[in-house]
Amino acid sequence: MILKELRQITIIGLGLLGASLALAVRRSMGGVRVVGWGHRGQTRVKAREQGLCDEVFEDIGQSVEGADLVIIASPIGTFEEIFEKIGGYLGNGTVVTDVGSTKVLPHKWAQKLPKTAHYIGSHPIAGSEQRGLEFARDDLFEKANCILTYGRKVDAGSLELLRYFWRELGCDVYEMGPARHDRLLANVSHLPHVAAAALVNASADEDLKMAGKGFMDTSRIASGPANIWTDIVTTNPENICKGIDRLVGELNKMKAAILKKDAKRIGSLLEKARAKRSKMIEFKLNKKEILS
Amino acid sequence: MILKELRQITIIGLGLLGASLALAVRRSMGGVRVVGWGHRGQTRVKAREQGLCDEVFEDIGQSVEGADLVIIASPIGTFEEIFEKIGGYLGNGTVVTDVGSTKVLPHKWAQKLPKTAHYIGSHPIAGSEQRGLEFARDDLFEKANCILTYGRKVDAGSLELLRYFWRELGCDVYEMGPARHDRLLANVSHLPHVAAAALVNASADEDLKMAGKGFMDTSRIASGPANIWTDIVTTNPENICKGIDRLVGELNKMKAAILKKDAKRIGSLLEKARAKRSKMIEFKLNKKEILS
Repeated sequence: MILKELRQITIIGLGLLGASLALAVRRSMGGVRVVGWGHRGQTRVKAREQGLCDEVFEDIGQSVEGADLVIIASPIGTFEEIFEKIGGYLGNGTVVTDVGSTKVLPHKWAQKLPKTAHYIGSHPIAGSEQRGLEFARDDLFEKANCILTYGRKVDAGSLELLRYFWRELGCDVYEMGPARHDRLLANVSHLPHVAAAALVNASADEDLKMAGKGFMDTSRIASGPANIWTDIVTTNPENICKGIDRLVGELNKMKAAILKKDAKRIGSLLEKARAKRSKMIEFKLNKKEILS
Repeated sequence: MILKELRQITIIGLGLLGASLALAVRRSMGGVRVVGWGHRGQTRVKAREQGLCDEVFEDIGQSVEGADLVIIASPIGTFEEIFEKIGGYLGNGTVVTDVGSTKVLPHKWAQKLPKTAHYIGSHPIAGSEQRGLEFARDDLFEKANCILTYGRKVDAGSLELLRYFWRELGCDVYEMGPARHDRLLANVSHLPHVAAAALVNASADEDLKMAGKGFMDTSRIASGPANIWTDIVTTNPENICKGIDRLVGELNKMKAAILKKDAKRIGSLLEKARAKRSKMIEFKLNKKEILS
């Protein structure tokens, strides 16, 4: 299937990501029918009021009927059940993907889909600490990196479709196996989240009243929805534990230098971090992923 | 002395904070003469070219002559020497303050000032990860919290002057002893800095290319100048080490919950952080310190 043959996209889950997807598809892909499914009645009412989709279903099976592409945008903990529920309603050759932040387990669960459907993981690295369709934005995926994950066997046409799909929404597309994805994301996303939450929990409410912009930025992601992040943490446990060990190791290096009153060592640890971050920012500026 | 008698302010150090102070004073306090001192010739040249101050001196003694208020805005590691150098040039009753991020040691060093000068610590919680007068902003101190520090003996007039001074620049003024200040700031500022640096150092350059907005925000302050932060860390060692221990304790709580596959516990740690941060944000919104 190629993009111009894409007639219907079904989005399962109409939270921040699902609703932003609906808006982005309608902006970038005129003529494609957007169908949505929401778990909560209130979400479905809001989605209908806002005209977010061409149609919003309460029945998940109905929602995927006729879809060329199904995108699951609900918390990872719901994927296994959703794969089971939609399997019987998928048309021949339907492409199924998701926008979850871990990929090893979704790939395992996707084996429950019928052989006639093609599952490939998608992870657009976009979002915010906010939740719900109220915060949806049609440009959420612009300039974002999107990782497609698949194993050794992959349907070439489905892969081509997803590459086109995410590029149309403004993403830079990368591809890798699910295990590598989960290792990488543990390091750049899941560990920072766990670190931000730990930093907030290590602080007294009274002290936080005096927090400045530095603390607020460092802890921003800790405001993310706990249920979604619990699913992420529980589906990527080993990589996150390794990350915690590395982070604790770095914190203890600093502590050792402080206890030794070794200003040179303290300075070199801080300078190493400064230089590494500066290199990262330069890379992203050159790629025009961020603006100066 | 009251604010309308303030005729000359001398700013020692014309980096981001010192230069922003010069701009802010000129914007808010017409008629006050702003004198600057810069360590590096290049900084003095730039300051003169930009007309940042009424006068910029190379000689630090000359720069404080005639000053009603001297504000030290150089790295903390330079304070002790500066107090020694300026002592003989201060007029009777001159108020001396600084904008450093730790206060116990500056108070100790300030004992070297002549008895006729009045030292009170100031800590405007403002700034950014950038450095240098190029990044100076005349509104840097607006809506910032500023902590004044002093011990049991304090000159009432000098205190009144500094309260007025920082309020004129848009700050909310708080007052406390230097030891309490250093404990508080370790928790809301110094520990987050050390945590951000550790997070960057725990990450591979190759992985960082895929970092999203979450990682970038969580690590932003790690881009701060290493020399300034080395001074902060070395002048507040005990409080920062205690903070590292608390943070490591929180990280290990999360690790233990992950190893036990205890999703409920993981969720409650994440939810605790989310709720605490939400309370902090609400407090700051109510205070109009931040905008929604």
